Amino acid sequence: MSYDVAALEKLIEQFQKMPSIGRKTAQRMAFHVLDLTDDEAKEFADAIIDAHTKIHRCSVCHNLTENELCPVCESVNRDKGLVCVVEDPRDVLAMERTREYSGVYHVLHGVISPMNGIGPEQLTIKSLVERASSGNITEIIMATNPTIEGDTTAMYISKLIKPFGVKVTRLAYGIPVGADIEYADDITLMRALSGRSEL
Amino acid sequence: MSYDVAALEKLIEQFQKMPSIGRKTAQRMAFHVLDLTDDEAKEFADAIIDAHTKIHRCSVCHNLTENELCPVCESVNRDKGLVCVVEDPRDVLAMERTREYSGVYHVLHGVISPMNGIGPEQLTIKSLVERASSGNITEIIMATNPTIEGDTTAMYISKLIKPFGVKVTRLAYGIPVGADIEYADDITLMRALSGRSEL
Repeated sequence: MSYDVAALEKLIEQFQKMPSIGRKTAQRMAFHVLDLTDDEAKEFADAIIDAHTKIHRCSVCHNLTENELCPVCESVNRDKGLVCVVEDPRDVLAMERTREYSGVYHVLHGVISPMNGIGPEQLTIKSLVERASSGNITEIIMATNPTIEGDTTAMYISKLIKPFGVKVTRLAYGIPVGADIEYADDITLMRALSGRSEL
Repeated sequence: MSYDVAALEKLIEQFQKMPSIGRKTAQRMAFHVLDLTDDEAKEFADAIIDAHTKIHRCSVCHNLTENELCPVCESVNRDKGLVCVVEDPRDVLAMERTREYSGVYHVLHGVISPMNGIGPEQLTIKSLVERASSGNITEIIMATNPTIEGDTTAMYISKLIKPFGVKVTRLAYGIPVGADIEYADDITLMRALSGRSEL
């Protein structure tokens, strides 16, 4: 005998669609929503709609923002000649956490992936080439993920950009800080070796 | 330099309030919401509001339902003389999954927990005593969790109900199926021993 409450089931399904959320967690989340007060539930629902209507892409770097320009592109303290190319807005958050980077960004919103039917035209590569051709940019740092797709995308972009005389660099590959060399995979170790620097 | 999108931050905070959801998962979920189409986002927000407005407690067993009675209480195939007392609507789902139980339920919506300021009057114990006093119930199975609070609540309720001549039983304690006796904790093993049955 099944026990079904349609509205609850629907809510569980909504949570279950999220990345890394299984049936059990989705259930727990749905019950959490039921435990909210009416006002809190409304606030939650509004936050979803708000995020959807208010947030869009920065007209320069395609990062997420509520304004015309994102805070990084708007800032007068950032070096506009240095552009870090990332796959995803989350990567911008990760870079900003280092508090070391003083340039601006360019968010691709994906990587070239023929397997998933994603070609260069679905990404923001055209707009990156336009930025590079403007003559105001001195260096572009490719910070795509160290995967086959990420590497391919970085190579593809660097070929398009080099003709404009812009320096194109890549984040260093190597052993992560705190990791054990014994457990490092072969490819990482190989890259760490070829990228070794003088002490 | 902080990178802040207020609407996004708000949405992340909403997800972070959920049980067992940390900052990183909340972030991933918020980005998932941004990736939805406008219609999907609306559907999600509606599911939250709907669950909140449509779902309430069954007037008999206090389980969650969209109607006056929950499907279990409404069913003519269930033994209304057998009542399983559980802490939470989730426990009903777990019991229903066994497909073995043919009685009805009574959901306490918590356990007696002086530490958290929860006394018998905040639970649905009064309504359970009323059900027991009606004379239609033959057995009440206490299926509260095997914790100190769960046990205390079970004892408290059984003392209130026994005067009505209703049989009160408790779910069996023991080694979980598939577990290793070597790793069973002392109390579970003790209970399994005292609750041993003839082969």
